[in-house]
Amino acid sequence: MKVLFTFNIKEEQLKRLETEFADVEFSFTKKIEEVPLDNYEVIVTYGEDISTAVLDRASSLKWIMVASAGVEKMPLDEIAEKGIIMSNVRGIHKTPMAESVLAHILSLGRALPTMREHQLKKEWNKKARQTELRGATAIILGPGAIGSEIGRLLQAFGVHTIGCNSSGDRVPNMDETIPFEKLKDVLPKGDIVISVLPSTPKTKGMLDGSYFEAMKDSALFMNFGRGDLVKESTLLHALKHDEIGHAVLDVFEKEPLPAESELWELGNVTISPHVSSHSGKYVERALEFFTVNLSKWREGDRELVNLIDLEQGY
Amino acid sequence: MKVLFTFNIKEEQLKRLETEFADVEFSFTKKIEEVPLDNYEVIVTYGEDISTAVLDRASSLKWIMVASAGVEKMPLDEIAEKGIIMSNVRGIHKTPMAESVLAHILSLGRALPTMREHQLKKEWNKKARQTELRGATAIILGPGAIGSEIGRLLQAFGVHTIGCNSSGDRVPNMDETIPFEKLKDVLPKGDIVISVLPSTPKTKGMLDGSYFEAMKDSALFMNFGRGDLVKESTLLHALKHDEIGHAVLDVFEKEPLPAESELWELGNVTISPHVSSHSGKYVERALEFFTVNLSKWREGDRELVNLIDLEQGY
Repeated sequence: MKVLFTFNIKEEQLKRLETEFADVEFSFTKKIEEVPLDNYEVIVTYGEDISTAVLDRASSLKWIMVASAGVEKMPLDEIAEKGIIMSNVRGIHKTPMAESVLAHILSLGRALPTMREHQLKKEWNKKARQTELRGATAIILGPGAIGSEIGRLLQAFGVHTIGCNSSGDRVPNMDETIPFEKLKDVLPKGDIVISVLPSTPKTKGMLDGSYFEAMKDSALFMNFGRGDLVKESTLLHALKHDEIGHAVLDVFEKEPLPAESELWELGNVTISPHVSSHSGKYVERALEFFTVNLSKWREGDRELVNLIDLEQGY
Repeated sequence: MKVLFTFNIKEEQLKRLETEFADVEFSFTKKIEEVPLDNYEVIVTYGEDISTAVLDRASSLKWIMVASAGVEKMPLDEIAEKGIIMSNVRGIHKTPMAESVLAHILSLGRALPTMREHQLKKEWNKKARQTELRGATAIILGPGAIGSEIGRLLQAFGVHTIGCNSSGDRVPNMDETIPFEKLKDVLPKGDIVISVLPSTPKTKGMLDGSYFEAMKDSALFMNFGRGDLVKESTLLHALKHDEIGHAVLDVFEKEPLPAESELWELGNVTISPHVSSHSGKYVERALEFFTVNLSKWREGDRELVNLIDLEQGY
């Protein structure tokens, strides 16, 4: 059985795989379009290189292991048609992303950017407006693995957490869960509004201006899901008219964020260039997911961990 | 019975006190040296205005309520001699301080200062070295109310916490607790070393250069206790010779930190101008402590909450 990786892993990581799966042949390429693909049963990829042309050439392909969370750049219909199953590393981002979200919330709350400015001027200045996170209310849009981890940490800080998903069904680490239809009623309570929603036909452009009008003037809005949730023009309007207090953006309608975007220089915006999930431990963690699933696969078990529903797109 | 405040409180706060304690007369001054003091049984102060001259004039004084945590500027021997009891608001700082400590740890771990620099240059730059806090080890010097709260939050992030106190007795939210004599043996394990020690004869200058040599080269050292724990020259040596990775300093040998101090401009130092405990909710919280104790006092109960041991100084 042959497995093709379209990214490199460390030598000791490969050795571990070869020891555990002695009868599997692992190959590596960064140029999937240049290698023959007809013998590979499994492709391990970050998900950006699987075109329909690739699928047509990969005649033995049965399983695509995506070592990232979003699959919106992949030809899901064609993958489904060919009966290929797909799994991802859902949950791999939860630790670094939740740490990123808490880092931004606490850094702004404790006025660290202001302190930094004072330090650069060698100014001993105690006048920075500092708040306490304890007692705040956070609304988390899309509380899956990542949102739930964010909720768990926020609760440790004494924050009231309100999850918002399509069903309104209860989610771990949320004090309340509401369906999307009730979001606008709840927004006036939120000191912090965090989206970790994936990009789906439903979420695209979902947050129009009326949602920002419903938020507190002091609200901290954080988009750590996908940039197409809200139009840049909508965000700019809300930020310039003080409909919200501050935005921390890890994702954008257009990435990389163009240099001419006004978002760069607004005083109440923090730009995180789609790095909230970055971690020195990423590949190591992805291989943990892959190893579990490859064991299942070798035993004929097709109920892999983190299977993707190709129709829903997540 | 008469109570003198040497700081102002809000009108609604005074009204609440007057309602609850109808037979107590509350007065306010910011210039304690200019008002007669002989009729006051209680003085409520931030602790910096109680001189021996004040004590000599306050002939009815029986209780000093200090609305702060540190009492090292007060004439403790004279207060003890006169049989005056003293209480403070130990624990009032724990929420804002623990939030400050976590804010700095996460902000550095997720490279927020680097991201800010990139934003100012409108530079979409993903190259910031980000780590995960999960799995790190933190050593907390002086795990009282504040240190224990820091430990609780760190544990929620999956950090292994080692408390260090004089007795080595177990402390809540610490995975281990060690006595000071064993600190140097444990320092090589610490990714983060946080002091929240008060200033006492024992702690003054306690952390000499040998402690910094024992720390990891990558260690994050945080002083949120008192500045006299470590000489500025010792810190500068450790920071300039990469004996540690970074220092976040909320307290200093000399405060305000003089403009000519080299600490201001070292790349691996964050200056927090003794503001880690600041909070918009401070006076409100202090009055909660005072109200509880004043009730006890009126009932003749002298076992006040947060009594200070005048010999130990905390």
